[in-house]
This record gives sequence, structure tokens and C-alpha cells, in this order.
Amino acid sequence: MTLIVALDFGGTKLAAGVVNAGAREWLHYERRLSPPNADAKTDLEIMRSLIHSLVQGAKPAAIGVSFGGPVDATTGVVRLSHHVPGWENIPLGKLLEEEFGVPAKVDNDANVAALGEHRFGAGKGYESLFYITISTGVGGGWILNGKPWRGTEGMAGEIGHMVVDPQGSVCLCGKQGCVERLASGPYMAQEVQENWQRGGKILRELVGGNWELVTGKIVSEAAIMGDELAQEVLYRGAWGLGVGIGNVANLVNPQRFVLGGSVTKAGEKWWEVVRKTAQKTALPEVSFDIVPAALGDDAPLWGAVALAETNCEVVEKAG
Amino acid sequence: MTLIVALDFGGTKLAAGVVNAGAREWLHYERRLSPPNADAKTDLEIMRSLIHSLVQGAKPAAIGVSFGGPVDATTGVVRLSHHVPGWENIPLGKLLEEEFGVPAKVDNDANVAALGEHRFGAGKGYESLFYITISTGVGGGWILNGKPWRGTEGMAGEIGHMVVDPQGSVCLCGKQGCVERLASGPYMAQEVQENWQRGGKILRELVGGNWELVTGKIVSEAAIMGDELAQEVLYRGAWGLGVGIGNVANLVNPQRFVLGGSVTKAGEKWWEVVRKTAQKTALPEVSFDIVPAALGDDAPLWGAVALAETNCEVVEKAG
Repeated sequence: MTLIVALDFGGTKLAAGVVNAGAREWLHYERRLSPPNADAKTDLEIMRSLIHSLVQGAKPAAIGVSFGGPVDATTGVVRLSHHVPGWENIPLGKLLEEEFGVPAKVDNDANVAALGEHRFGAGKGYESLFYITISTGVGGGWILNGKPWRGTEGMAGEIGHMVVDPQGSVCLCGKQGCVERLASGPYMAQEVQENWQRGGKILRELVGGNWELVTGKIVSEAAIMGDELAQEVLYRGAWGLGVGIGNVANLVNPQRFVLGGSVTKAGEKWWEVVRKTAQKTALPEVSFDIVPAALGDDAPLWGAVALAETNCEVVEKAG
Repeated sequence: MTLIVALDFGGTKLAAGVVNAGAREWLHYERRLSPPNADAKTDLEIMRSLIHSLVQGAKPAAIGVSFGGPVDATTGVVRLSHHVPGWENIPLGKLLEEEFGVPAKVDNDANVAALGEHRFGAGKGYESLFYITISTGVGGGWILNGKPWRGTEGMAGEIGHMVVDPQGSVCLCGKQGCVERLASGPYMAQEVQENWQRGGKILRELVGGNWELVTGKIVSEAAIMGDELAQEVLYRGAWGLGVGIGNVANLVNPQRFVLGGSVTKAGEKWWEVVRKTAQKTALPEVSFDIVPAALGDDAPLWGAVALAETNCEVVEKAG
């Protein structure tokens, strides 16, 4: 039995799973919320105890890790986390290798999720695809020629900060009208909050009149129920994402776009606007399709399995 | 002696060169203007006679072809030319293979120029780069992992039709504010012509008062000489290109951008605007440089040599 350990450091939540190499069902699986004042140390501590409880004394063959933030995939060093302090330049891969005595591979969540969807999900059989997560942020990961493409410094895939509306609102990144500024959940919520006086009855009732309770999810719900302000904000986000996807199609011409993350649950109309805008932005000769991720929240974890299995093959050949 | 034939179907001009495999100097080289009423048949006829005159009875080992328009690089079939009629679905590779009895590889000019710069020019030693030509149109070609990346249907590289200003003027492609609509020579000329009443003395003198004579080159010259309208149009083009490059850097994270084509001769200020805008558009963690093409107008022809040499190795191994 060759045990594979998969880890997902997700910012607000931590997940770990154990699987037999080649199998497609978890032997054991656990998910924990990160504590409110978490830092790198506490998250690592929780993850360590999860691993020990999952492998139950057995020695795994390899560990694969998805990390919610920029990572140097070659060395396994985390550059930082935008959500949890203390992750600056932590050699996560090495720490795990030393503790468990097995190879450990680390990559950022979008790259790992792309790999997961490619190997086990909506990207199976596709030699080139772009995976996009639209959630608290907007990020992407590449599969080109059947393999992850990470870019020179592992920074490829940043569709979230593509400028699609240079006259638009300012994003945290300093630019105006990025895809993320338009399409991510928190920014959609902010947009609704800033225009609260124009909000209709539906929105008000959903949050009991308290605009501070508006979230990306509430915006989606209100839009589906017919609220005009919510529709305007949600479909403007879908438009921005569609322009981004069309531009990517023209630039790199992948076969398929796989979309995951909470915002993709915003209903059929959202998908329609994304697809129509992307098609209109792409040149007529450029064809592609845009489909929902198949693995849902588990895409990074299954991608981590795929990452680890690459190592496993090496281990098995060597041993 | 292993002769390599390189061909460049450039729309308005035709060029052919012959080189010894491995050598970096032309044995023979000829360039012809395409006749005013050229079609695919006349261009092919001219190219045939060029080849025969260049190889002087010797049999080449392989032919490489750069074509100014969309090509299926796998089959060597030209899809069409935007400049010369009659190229729809012409199996150019096969025609050459049958006539000369040697392998012939065909790809579009931007991809081939990217390969040329990668192998022999400003991209030597770079594993990932994006070549952009800014001339009558704006197009691009990829080198990723040291090899051309053409996309699923060979359509990758179309930075020219990335939308950077959704409120901008309408492009021939139907979209508003594409990079090509802002940065290409003919569109810059059109922009100046449409605002002719605002043109200053410098512009008027350069074209003897006749706005119909304004070209992209005139716009560059007038801008360098201090004409305000010309500067506005030229640097707005550089801005659009810079946004496009910054977006590409975020998306694919190549090491280097290599820029060729007539508009890149528009002076230092143009380069400065392109570089500054690209840097501002890219995320701070994303680094890259932007350099001029080294092979100039011969980039496609040298790229065609590189294309053909790939075949040559196969031939030599097989024989």
C-alpha cells in the first residue's frame, strides 16, 4: 500500500486527506477552520496533528501541498499568505520532508487546483486548459502540453489583476478595473454597500436592513431574486471576467476554461454573461469552452494528490 | 553540404534565403515586392522561381516557411491571408514538399519570428519569451519551455486584439480599444487624419499639407519633432501596448518580451511609455524585461531556417 498525503492550506480553512496511490477515494479526510488569530505556526501545528491522526502510524510515500498564496514550486518555499501572518519565506516543503522523511511538493492553490481538475475533474483529457477560481480573490492556473505551466517565477495565471476597465474603481493592487475588482465576492459586496441607497426591497430584506451584512453570496442571491442593484453588480463582474477570459483565449488559445470558486454558484445568468462576453472578446477563429469545475472545494486537495504522485513514481522507480 | 531553404510570404513582399545547415550567413538571398494585383498563384509562382534561382540545381534538405496570416502549423495548410486573395485553405507545405521532394514546415510570421529571435536573436538563452510585432498589425508568438507554443488551433499570440480600453474606438475586428486599434501604424495614421484640424505646423509640413499622406512613420517622426497631436496618438498607442504587455506578464509570466516591427523605431520615448506602463500594469512580484528584436526584418526568415532545421535533424537521423 502506497499512502499519499494531500494538504490544503486555504487561508481560513485547513484540510488534509490520505489516499492510496492510484485510488480515487479518500481513506481518511479531515477539514478544520483556521483559528481566528491564526498565524503560520498555529496552522502548521494543526496540519501536523491532522497528518499524524490520518496516517495512524503508517509512513506515507509522498506529500502534496496546496497553499493559498504565492509559492516557489521549485523549492517548496512559501513567499507569503495574504490572509495569515508569519508565512513569509517559510520552507514548507523542507519542513514536511524533514518531519516525515518523505518527498513533499508544494504549489499555490490555483496551480494545484488546475492540476486536480486536469487529472481527475473537468479537464480530464484536455492537453491545455486554464483553471480560474472566482471567490474572495480571482486567480488562475495553467495546464499547457498536459503539464502545469507556472511561469518564470511561478507567477503565471494572475488573471485577477488583468485590467479590463481602465476607468473603473481602484483595486487593492493599485490598478483600476481589474477582473478581481469587478468579479470577486468581497468587491461585489463592497460595490453594493457603496450604492446602498439604490438597493431595493429584496436586498434589504436579505440582510435585515443592515448593509454591513452584505456578502458576495447575498449579492448573487438578491440578483437571482430580481434585485436591480445586485444584478447590475453581479453581471458587471461576469462581464469583466468574460473580457478577461476572451483576452486569455486570444493570447494563449487553450482548449478549455474551468471555473471554480463560490462566485460560480451565482446562477445560470451569470454563466451566460461570462460565456457571451468571452466569445465576443475572442477572435471568431478562436474556439474554446467554459465549464464548471467538477471537484468543487476539493480541487486543491486532489491536485495535491496529483502533485505527490509525481514524486511517488520517482520513489517507486528509485526503490 | 546540407542546404536549408527559408521563405517569407510577407503580404506586400516576398523573401527567400538559402543557408548551410548550422551556418549563420546567407549563401544566397533575394527579396521581391509582391505585384500590385498579386494573388496566391502569382506569389507562389514568384517564390518558386526564387527558390530555383537560389538553389541553382542543388537539392535542399528542408524548407521552412513564414507566412503572413493564420496557418495550421501541424498540416502546413494556410487558412487565409488578410492582404493577398486566394490563399484560403492552400496546402502550402504539401505543395512545396511535392515540388521539391523534401520536408517543408509552415507557420505564421509571428510564431516563426519568435522562433528566429529565440534561436538567433534577442531571445537566445531564454526559455520563455513573447515576441510582438508592431507594424501594420500587432501580433505575437510564444516560446514556452524553449519551444513554440501555438495554442490548440494555432491561434495563440493574438495580443493585437486584447481589449485595453473598452470605451475606445472600434477596430476592424469589431471590438473597441484593442491594442492593435491603438498601437498599429495604419490606425495611428487614421487617428491623426481624423483629428487633422488639431494638427500643428510640424505635421502639416511633413506631408505638404495633405492629410492623406499621413502614415504611421510620419506620426512617429512628427512626435519626435514635438508635434502635440502626433505625440498624443503615438504615446496613447505605446500606453495600450504597455497595458497589453503587463497583462500578458501577469497571465503567463515569461522571462522576456521581444518587440519588432516598424513602430518600434518610433524613438526612445515610445519605449519608455511601453516599459513604464507594462511595469505599472504587472503585479510588483512579476518581473520581466522588454527588448528590441535583434534580427529586424529578417526575423521571420531566420525563424524559417530554425523551423526547417528541426526537420533536417529528423532527415539526418532517418538517413
